[in-house]
Amino acid sequence: MIEPIEQLISQLSHLPGIGAKTAQRLALHIVQQDAESVRELAVSIYQAKKSVTFCSVCGNMTDVAHPVCSVCTDARRDDSIICVVRDVRDVMAIERVHEYRGKYHVLGGTISPMNGRGPDDIAIAPLLKRLEKGNVKELLLATNPDIEGEATALYIAKLAKPYNVRVTRIAHGVPVGGDLEYTDDVTLARAIAGRRDLF
Amino acid sequence: MIEPIEQLISQLSHLPGIGAKTAQRLALHIVQQDAESVRELAVSIYQAKKSVTFCSVCGNMTDVAHPVCSVCTDARRDDSIICVVRDVRDVMAIERVHEYRGKYHVLGGTISPMNGRGPDDIAIAPLLKRLEKGNVKELLLATNPDIEGEATALYIAKLAKPYNVRVTRIAHGVPVGGDLEYTDDVTLARAIAGRRDLF
Repeated sequence: MIEPIEQLISQLSHLPGIGAKTAQRLALHIVQQDAESVRELAVSIYQAKKSVTFCSVCGNMTDVAHPVCSVCTDARRDDSIICVVRDVRDVMAIERVHEYRGKYHVLGGTISPMNGRGPDDIAIAPLLKRLEKGNVKELLLATNPDIEGEATALYIAKLAKPYNVRVTRIAHGVPVGGDLEYTDDVTLARAIAGRRDLF
Repeated sequence: MIEPIEQLISQLSHLPGIGAKTAQRLALHIVQQDAESVRELAVSIYQAKKSVTFCSVCGNMTDVAHPVCSVCTDARRDDSIICVVRDVRDVMAIERVHEYRGKYHVLGGTISPMNGRGPDDIAIAPLLKRLEKGNVKELLLATNPDIEGEATALYIAKLAKPYNVRVTRIAHGVPVGGDLEYTDDVTLARAIAGRRDLF
């Protein structure tokens, strides 16, 4: 095959969730586009990387002109509660539902001994430094409800204890619109254990 | 959200098979890479587009230095047989199995009235011009075995009749390694109708 195409296929297949077949389809799609749209795609990739950095306080995404992100600088947001999440996408998901009005802390991963990622490889130390300042009253642990997310949440909960903050975890239960019959056993058990009074 | 990121997500979601969620995941992955790998990705996209064009004879992919592709210029390949395919990916798939040693013709699509694509929108006229030259003995129609592919094959077969060539179609049947029980009815019926003598 033509070498620059092979090069492009190899580059694309390094992207998450893009296998060899998809990379090939994308590469062929790209070379069949007009030169202008291809240039736009290449430029927007480069431009996005150049103009984005990560908040020096919480690790959320921010533009390079503002080293502290828009959530951290927003005075209307409650800075006595910090929501701890795995990555920027989780911030975006939570922001989308307009339910949470506190601050964030992005870990940049979860503790995963299987993948050689320990507590020092994610942003736990900066989180403890934020707790040290003393004005935080609640730590809402919103890591994923999977094994690594749970382990990370428990680990942080333990470390946060001496700081005298309320440590909470997002609720586990049956998803809205879900079907009891098809809910897995662990989720169903948690949904029952975590039942709430209606009146 | 930061504007260049939105721009990138929108650009990525125009790629085939990439939805809004995947585009977002890819964009966030990209901005979290180091600047050098992002530059490489952007450059390889631009470079691939710049160095690839399509063969003036058969429509296959070729590098800009060679307006006629490596298959068309290969004197060892039989030019009395033309394999007609929908797009470049099909050429790559057929080349991979090393079973076919003739030439190709890439249509660049199939006839699809539902999508407003008629016979004039794909490379049928150039194919007929190749048949006019008279040295083609067989036309192997290898469009996909779906409704559009079948319709396109039949349409071309009709047009090719006056040129006095043998018109063939790739065999339909049970895939190797497949399971009779789970084969759909149409395929099974074709596999029986197209049965071959073993001795």
